[in-house]
Amino acid sequence: MSTSFRFLGAAGFEIVGPRYRILIDPFLTGNSFAPVSHQELERPDLILVTHAAYDHLGDAAALALRTGAPVACGGDVRHLLMDDGVPSGQIQASIWGVVIKIGDIVIRPVECHHWSMSKRKNGDVLSGTPLAFIFETEPGVRIYHYGDSSYFDMRFIGELYQPTVGLLGCSQPYELVPPVPQAGEELSGELDPEEAARVAEMLGVKVAVACHYFTHNDDTKRFLERVPVHDRSGKRQALAPLPGETFVIDSSGLVERDPARVN
Amino acid sequence: MSTSFRFLGAAGFEIVGPRYRILIDPFLTGNSFAPVSHQELERPDLILVTHAAYDHLGDAAALALRTGAPVACGGDVRHLLMDDGVPSGQIQASIWGVVIKIGDIVIRPVECHHWSMSKRKNGDVLSGTPLAFIFETEPGVRIYHYGDSSYFDMRFIGELYQPTVGLLGCSQPYELVPPVPQAGEELSGELDPEEAARVAEMLGVKVAVACHYFTHNDDTKRFLERVPVHDRSGKRQALAPLPGETFVIDSSGLVERDPARVN
Amino acid sequence: MSTSFRFLGAAGFEIVGPRYRILIDPFLTGNSFAPVSHQELERPDLILVTHAAYDHLGDAAALALRTGAPVACGGDVRHLLMDDGVPSGQIQASIWGVVIKIGDIVIRPVECHHWSMSKRKNGDVLSGTPLAFIFETEPGVRIYHYGDSSYFDMRFIGELYQPTVGLLGCSQPYELVPPVPQAGEELSGELDPEEAARVAEMLGVKVAVACHYFTHNDDTKRFLERVPVHDRSGKRQALAPLPGETFVIDSSGLVERDPARVN
Repeated sequence: MSTSFRFLGAAGFEIVGPRYRILIDPFLTGNSFAPVSHQELERPDLILVTHAAYDHLGDAAALALRTGAPVACGGDVRHLLMDDGVPSGQIQASIWGVVIKIGDIVIRPVECHHWSMSKRKNGDVLSGTPLAFIFETEPGVRIYHYGDSSYFDMRFIGELYQPTVGLLGCSQPYELVPPVPQAGEELSGELDPEEAARVAEMLGVKVAVACHYFTHNDDTKRFLERVPVHDRSGKRQALAPLPGETFVIDSSGLVERDPARVN
Repeated sequence: MSTSFRFLGAAGFEIVGPRYRILIDPFLTGNSFAPVSHQELERPDLILVTHAAYDHLGDAAALALRTGAPVACGGDVRHLLMDDGVPSGQIQASIWGVVIKIGDIVIRPVECHHWSMSKRKNGDVLSGTPLAFIFETEPGVRIYHYGDSSYFDMRFIGELYQPTVGLLGCSQPYELVPPVPQAGEELSGELDPEEAARVAEMLGVKVAVACHYFTHNDDTKRFLERVPVHDRSGKRQALAPLPGETFVIDSSGLVERDPARVN
Repeated sequence: MSTSFRFLGAAGFEIVGPRYRILIDPFLTGNSFAPVSHQELERPDLILVTHAAYDHLGDAAALALRTGAPVACGGDVRHLLMDDGVPSGQIQASIWGVVIKIGDIVIRPVECHHWSMSKRKNGDVLSGTPLAFIFETEPGVRIYHYGDSSYFDMRFIGELYQPTVGLLGCSQPYELVPPVPQAGEELSGELDPEEAARVAEMLGVKVAVACHYFTHNDDTKRFLERVPVHDRSGKRQALAPLPGETFVIDSSGLVERDPARVN
């Protein structure tokens, strides 16, 4: 048994395990590095949306409408999806701690220290609660998606829920042009590489996977350097996939990666 | 001197101490396990509302309107109460850390990691800040109500404010039918029994009281099992009251409980 | 080289370093203790707003409009500023962890445990994410502004970002009349003096500066008493400036304070 991960760019992953297919933060339209369009994606069993930022919410509504797949998300994202025509009964809203089951899939939302701010179709500004997620695709493959969290003491997440794979932001999709003019520029993502490497150690994951970027950059390079520095297990694997790259993980760790990848 | 607690179901308690009567999260209408209707409750000296969820906000507005009792809550709940006709001058909004005094009652709002999301009468979605509360009813009886928080490192709350009684969610009022159709189901409350037992230890309470349910279930059973496991004081008392049950606590701990209760 | 700080009352500071002038939370109109009107302030290179509370947002919009200075803030404050006519391109919104650069100034927003709630001109209630800030005015002068945070475990902020100066609330601007009638009164600020003194130690600052008040009171007195109690460095300097007072800090610590001050 094994679970494959296809990186879609930004914080998006298509995860296919022995029992189900999950899409997380599927941002494809407007992502010029996306390996597929949302129309080309196979029907997932579940779509997870961590928060309302456009590079995370992405094509979730369109995918839900086309495929009928259920969506798990926070309460504000539920409103946004419904504004786009997704029926309430196709959505499961939840919050930190409240474990949910959609079909056969069990999802644990965990704390994410970030914002979730959006504008509804009627112009209202909406503020909600961002989520990180933990779920198991097979015995020994427990995936943590950071949901764009900033750094905080996550040791309790490691201790109580023992994820084995961490999908961890370490950078910013700098290539995106902000949707509104801004006075300055961003120099980092919510987690920088040093912080992400420390998070990997706090969580105790076997495999630390970088995300929240489109292309390799100084951040992804530093992520690969810093993960081993903070690794007290001596066995942590680190990778920084490129959009479109697929890698395979089982209960022993990373077992296969796209032969085309460079670093 | 002693303080009596009547459990109202969900996270609701009527607490009567030597000097005043406090209602917390009085959810009665729509709660088929409620031991009383909101019309039957005696006038409290203060109503505390932890956040806007309907099973916590409950009958707070109706009670405030009928009895004239003041309400302490977060800023979003203040708007909801005012939408229902409660005058601004009857409400004290506060936030984590800002200790407030209403009449003779001193209330310390503390961090609660959750959401507080609601829809106003005009259809606007409202997002606010959930609260947990600490207050003292008599010397040595300092009550912590968790306000539907998820798990986080609460040791500083124990160290700095030293609650002696913890009203701790460990389950979910599973009998409630969600107000909107959802794609899946909930498998736990914001705190599960293991987490709640750890919280009791972090806070250092003498008495750990389960809540956030209507009936005894696997969660309440496990709460009673796990509290002693995490108890380094060797003296922590645990109970899981049923709606309508009253128990009495003084500075030495639990001194009396409803003889009708089973486990 | 040195950096001067002028306390404006509440949480407001005008900070002038070797390379730039920064205003934080400039609340002057409605602040009867303000040493200057907003019209008298020199053009800053950057205005920082921690959250939407009126005693923090203050005159930010008027200052931005008069001087053209850029503003860094959270997403909700961005909407408020734009409602007041500040162009989007003059604002940089950010969130915990996302380091931003405006002109030559690098700003790190960090976690702030509080609320940010306001009413827009159209009557909508707006909820956002409060910020604390860290920035360096010269080598060895790294300033942390608490942004009205309540107490939490900030050791990671000390460890990772090593601020040398802490601008820390320890009280409440009690003289302000609340904008709406309330049922009770406030007995403390978001941080009380004991908590603020512990925060100074967690951050490891050389200089702990009290704020979030207008006049000396029991809180400011206790802040000066408690900072040394929690100081394991044995060298921490503490001060509680009065509105209008200016003090000077360099990489060695506090080097000069207004000769007119009393305690």
